Amino acid sequence: MLKVGILGGGQLGRMLLQAAANYPVETYVLESDPDCPAAHLCHHFTKGDIRNFDDVYAFGKTVDKLTIEIEQVNIDALEKLAAEGVTIVPEPRVLRMIKNKILQKKFYQDHQIPSPDFIVTHSVSELKTHLSFLPAVHKIGEGGYDGKGVQVIADATQIDKGFDAPSVLEKMVDIKKELAVMVAINSKNETAVYPLVEMCFDPALNLLDYQLCPAQVTDTIAQRATEIALQVVKGMGAAGLFAVEMFLDHEDRLFVNETAPRVHNSGHHSIEAIHSSQFDMLWRILLELPLGSTQLISPSIMINLVGTGATGPATYMGIDHVTAHPGLYMHCYGKKSSKPGRKMGHMTLLGGDIVQLQQQAHELKKMLSVSGGSER
Amino acid sequence: MLKVGILGGGQLGRMLLQAAANYPVETYVLESDPDCPAAHLCHHFTKGDIRNFDDVYAFGKTVDKLTIEIEQVNIDALEKLAAEGVTIVPEPRVLRMIKNKILQKKFYQDHQIPSPDFIVTHSVSELKTHLSFLPAVHKIGEGGYDGKGVQVIADATQIDKGFDAPSVLEKMVDIKKELAVMVAINSKNETAVYPLVEMCFDPALNLLDYQLCPAQVTDTIAQRATEIALQVVKGMGAAGLFAVEMFLDHEDRLFVNETAPRVHNSGHHSIEAIHSSQFDMLWRILLELPLGSTQLISPSIMINLVGTGATGPATYMGIDHVTAHPGLYMHCYGKKSSKPGRKMGHMTLLGGDIVQLQQQAHELKKMLSVSGGSER
Repeated sequence: MLKVGILGGGQLGRMLLQAAANYPVETYVLESDPDCPAAHLCHHFTKGDIRNFDDVYAFGKTVDKLTIEIEQVNIDALEKLAAEGVTIVPEPRVLRMIKNKILQKKFYQDHQIPSPDFIVTHSVSELKTHLSFLPAVHKIGEGGYDGKGVQVIADATQIDKGFDAPSVLEKMVDIKKELAVMVAINSKNETAVYPLVEMCFDPALNLLDYQLCPAQVTDTIAQRATEIALQVVKGMGAAGLFAVEMFLDHEDRLFVNETAPRVHNSGHHSIEAIHSSQFDMLWRILLELPLGSTQLISPSIMINLVGTGATGPATYMGIDHVTAHPGLYMHCYGKKSSKPGRKMGHMTLLGGDIVQLQQQAHELKKMLSVSGGSER
Repeated sequence: MLKVGILGGGQLGRMLLQAAANYPVETYVLESDPDCPAAHLCHHFTKGDIRNFDDVYAFGKTVDKLTIEIEQVNIDALEKLAAEGVTIVPEPRVLRMIKNKILQKKFYQDHQIPSPDFIVTHSVSELKTHLSFLPAVHKIGEGGYDGKGVQVIADATQIDKGFDAPSVLEKMVDIKKELAVMVAINSKNETAVYPLVEMCFDPALNLLDYQLCPAQVTDTIAQRATEIALQVVKGMGAAGLFAVEMFLDHEDRLFVNETAPRVHNSGHHSIEAIHSSQFDMLWRILLELPLGSTQLISPSIMINLVGTGATGPATYMGIDHVTAHPGLYMHCYGKKSSKPGRKMGHMTLLGGDIVQLQQQAHELKKMLSVSGGSER
């Protein structure tokens, strides 16, 4: 059996492993926390730091192929492993480019992919020379994740919020909708594109709040978004599964915000709403099986469940209420500890009518919570 | 988190554990083979014999609830565990009755559930006094599984095939179709009934060959089958998931063949074709969540993949062909060794048109095989 390693053992790894059990594959996970969501679902768990060269290299030598569930991994080790014959999906050079927001922006520029205008900056003081470019978003080149390393600089008074490190200052887009397209590409350069999804964020936590599929946009916009996503992924020129996140502005222009080279929060609905889920699709790519069908089974809404209250042992409240709803699929991530804003699970709701789905989602969201205890 | 143990670590356990990862539950498996399909997908694996009192008892003391994926378990240990406060699903008394074909037949008789006429026998010589009852099927009281312990006695010349042990001699039914109904019942006595399925067996191996959902019968027959299945399950009077297998004869009469008190081969299609799969449903029962929806998402056909050729390390052939078919879901069971007739996986095909589904299933079945090497 092919031996495949996953760097990272969070919820994405967990759902990847649920799907792996459908195929003849031996699974390995590297993660520092032996109680992580994926630890008990693989054949072989290795405790180690995915950012550490030696840990990643030693782990990589035990497998035939490697994939990631988070970008914050040691790319030097992956490059050495690739040179020594381990197949890495996505390729280390793609990961290196995506992981650095400056390189990622330059990639879009070089490939004439619409993305917000930007300036590369190196210090907060440098921002003062770009006042006419404001309002803008300052994004740190390396190390940002889940909203960390991103600051809105609305005007000159907010310049101090910027980063004293290589960063991009990105022109603010007048956002009407946030959209995402998942694209699969295999080693034969064949592609499969998932239906466009629409995301709604919780402004307080800056974590994906809920997500609609298909996105409520015109066919022309959906078609254009698909073309842009394909342009991004073909530009990368390497096998993998990619989530291309976009903004639609009030003039109906599309801009690529960023690309994730892996299974992604915006694709969770695909487990129930699409023939071949994003997790199934990545295994097909890794095992060199034909790409799966991205046909929609049903419109869906996906609701993230994030921790509230204090930090502490996780207690779910309301699972017994939401699971009474027909067409509601619960996914708990098995994290022992909850903290405010931490992704603890998600629900996917299937249904024929989008407006009704949205109303039901709001009701269901109110019923379910997870907490680490009451806040003091 | 609730601690739930599974007795047995085969493919049913494997698929149960894939579904378990959606819920807050800590999973335990007891099985003698540490390389079994379920071993790497649970939180805690214990090597032990599910038929041994001490092994089952010691294992049961580590969990809050216990379930099974096979009937051949030590029921004495389960009874002691139940008396000491461990919840067993299904209840040991139900398991004891079902596991013994004589008791099971008497249960149907006592509850006026239509089932083929029968005579209890204790020896082969005793069969000679029942020649007028032939043709019949001789079923050993205890220890039969997957076609073992069952012999057709067509006439007096075949009496030697019978069992020299407590058995039932069951009147042969002139079978038109084999049907099955899955029923879930929770501790509040609420029930959920799955759509009727139709099974086609491979006469050579006597293993389920493929299965259609919904069964191609009249609404009246489907309704009657559902009523009978509910009658069986309510008669048991205990929480669990039950597969009620039936015969339809050429006069459109229904007879219960047997009942399995667990997730079952006839429900594999439910993973993709039904809102709440049989595996999801059993977790809902164990976790005391509301029963799931048994609504059909799409008609489906499920094809078993059984080993051919020699006994040896399993090699799958044709996965790359069948997975190219849109709407085809592959499930490999991860068994290291294949032998003729061993269940190695299954495929589920979704589609709108039953006739087309059947044609496609025949084509797909030809493409896929698993072998332990070529036969000498």
